[in-house]
Amino acid sequence: MNREHSDNIRPIRFREGALQLLDQRRLPQESVWQTYQDAPAVAVAIRDMVVRGAPAIGITAAFGVVLACQRAAGQHDWRARVAVDIETLRGSRPTAVNLFWALDRMQAVVAASESVDAAVSETRAVAERMLEADIAGNRQLGALGAQLIDPGRGVLTHCNTGSLATGGYGTALGVIRAAWDAGRIKEVFADETRPWLQGSRLTAWELVHDGIPVQVLCEGAAASLLRSGRVGWVIVGADRIAANGDTANKIGTYGLALLARAHGVRFMVAAPVATIDFEMADGSGIPIEQRGEDEVLALAGQRVAADGARGYNPAFDVTPADLIDAIVTERGVVEAPTRERLATLREPAAAESATTGA
Amino acid sequence: MNREHSDNIRPIRFREGALQLLDQRRLPQESVWQTYQDAPAVAVAIRDMVVRGAPAIGITAAFGVVLACQRAAGQHDWRARVAVDIETLRGSRPTAVNLFWALDRMQAVVAASESVDAAVSETRAVAERMLEADIAGNRQLGALGAQLIDPGRGVLTHCNTGSLATGGYGTALGVIRAAWDAGRIKEVFADETRPWLQGSRLTAWELVHDGIPVQVLCEGAAASLLRSGRVGWVIVGADRIAANGDTANKIGTYGLALLARAHGVRFMVAAPVATIDFEMADGSGIPIEQRGEDEVLALAGQRVAADGARGYNPAFDVTPADLIDAIVTERGVVEAPTRERLATLREPAAAESATTGA
Repeated sequence: MNREHSDNIRPIRFREGALQLLDQRRLPQESVWQTYQDAPAVAVAIRDMVVRGAPAIGITAAFGVVLACQRAAGQHDWRARVAVDIETLRGSRPTAVNLFWALDRMQAVVAASESVDAAVSETRAVAERMLEADIAGNRQLGALGAQLIDPGRGVLTHCNTGSLATGGYGTALGVIRAAWDAGRIKEVFADETRPWLQGSRLTAWELVHDGIPVQVLCEGAAASLLRSGRVGWVIVGADRIAANGDTANKIGTYGLALLARAHGVRFMVAAPVATIDFEMADGSGIPIEQRGEDEVLALAGQRVAADGARGYNPAFDVTPADLIDAIVTERGVVEAPTRERLATLREPAAAESATTGA
Repeated sequence: MNREHSDNIRPIRFREGALQLLDQRRLPQESVWQTYQDAPAVAVAIRDMVVRGAPAIGITAAFGVVLACQRAAGQHDWRARVAVDIETLRGSRPTAVNLFWALDRMQAVVAASESVDAAVSETRAVAERMLEADIAGNRQLGALGAQLIDPGRGVLTHCNTGSLATGGYGTALGVIRAAWDAGRIKEVFADETRPWLQGSRLTAWELVHDGIPVQVLCEGAAASLLRSGRVGWVIVGADRIAANGDTANKIGTYGLALLARAHGVRFMVAAPVATIDFEMADGSGIPIEQRGEDEVLALAGQRVAADGARGYNPAFDVTPADLIDAIVTERGVVEAPTRERLATLREPAAAESATTGA
């Protein structure tokens, strides 16, 4: 069976010298584009989650460096100005490594540029290529991940890992798109993903948009759903994968991995190689962002919990590698990840032998 | 260390021939009392969660029978009228067994009454005693449960099991109140408990009211919290306990029990003996209420998920007995529950030998 779907959501675009972001805080009620002319405003947009999702944050930051170069044009100290802006972008969010990966690349491009004008055009070209490569990579990893899924059962995903979290198409949601198109998925379940509701607000919107039926559930319902046998795979994205395979992702992922294991449901992490932090030995070193208590204590801007109650709001957790059945990247699939197996993804040549289905 | 706290929240009261319920849909923003003159309106109030929590539902239904008798006064077919009202009350919610337990008792009281006037006064007296016995029982089980807790760590609870879920004081929250007073708890964590947010709206309100500090978290954060070592016990209530110890409770409880076991955290169910359904062999027969999709798809009356998305909204799940370290009742504690051990609670005399600390 072949199903067709559209894939035309693109949350990040650069037009007339400005960065435009589809404001994810206002979806699905409204599609509002915000326009950015300078890097500090981009850093605020990342911090405030106008854009979120590890790959999308990286691409956004890359365009932030383009804006930094544009603003520094004509200034004798342009390199210093751009360097300050890059540091501001670095400080926007701590957990997703794609941010630092993208900024390191852009920093190198700036360093190699002989003039600010060259830096403007070079950074712009690299950022545009990064965006296109992300989408192409997602289509590759989507196809690789889909092949792991035996037809006939449902999948459960967490947070949003789709077009909105990336340049386009998505990571875990890219796998789901590809597997749905290939007729390998019977039904799609999406955690609503408190406190920010990326699942009900964003993932459901993308899937409805693409004509893929979706059932949204509260995180608390995942255990009995997994027990029911309706789900064959839990498929999630990643904000940072340590060299041994330990994976930081949206809060709730670690619990899902434990519940999947307890019920014999397989657990897949889908992410670009850029999400792997080969310098981080294991998950214990990954910085976990603590976000404001109000994200838990209030809903839609209105306080819900009694005055005096406190909120406990880590934005991410770390899933140990031994709970992960497969890490799926654009360079190939690593099953039962270990340091040695993941290392094969580091160099494209070395990765060939470790991949399946590529 | 001894801590003092108030315990003066009472959500159910009978005044001037009418039932009054503290409207739990509007807490903590507003304390609004709703007044009921007849049983069908009480059934709607239970269905719509003006009152919720297994013991509170049972007591409310008992007062609903008082109203039924009052309305039938002077009618020659008063028994038939009351019987119809009792069936209406039975249909209000399916999972909590306390509802059926209370209605069976009230039905027997009506049957034993020689006139409708006698039925009015007898049902009223029995309902009032049921309310008082519930509060007294909760204080007993609270003291018994508190003794199980080694001082120095935190506890995590789910949903609301406090004064608002009972006649007063609470079951799991009664244990937490007692253990806090005895200085056995370092910190209290409460799941916000989507979709209805009983944790952030009701449990946090009760604890703040009683001067017990509380940290509210999204369900997704429970796994990493349990991993942190800060929590020694997860303490929950129950809507129905099967004869073998399998326990139906608010959706999310089963997952918590699995996560607790995975981290060596102990898991306590606190409930009155009335919550044990000795006629139900195991959890597989407990009817699980499926509630409306809008509870998941909307927040504060506003649609959140994209149009076209569906909701998956079971209101309860079943935790197998082997994940439960202790069932705590007003008649005693059963550790590592089995059919045989639970059966000792059925008769007060037989229960003496199986209890600890009573």
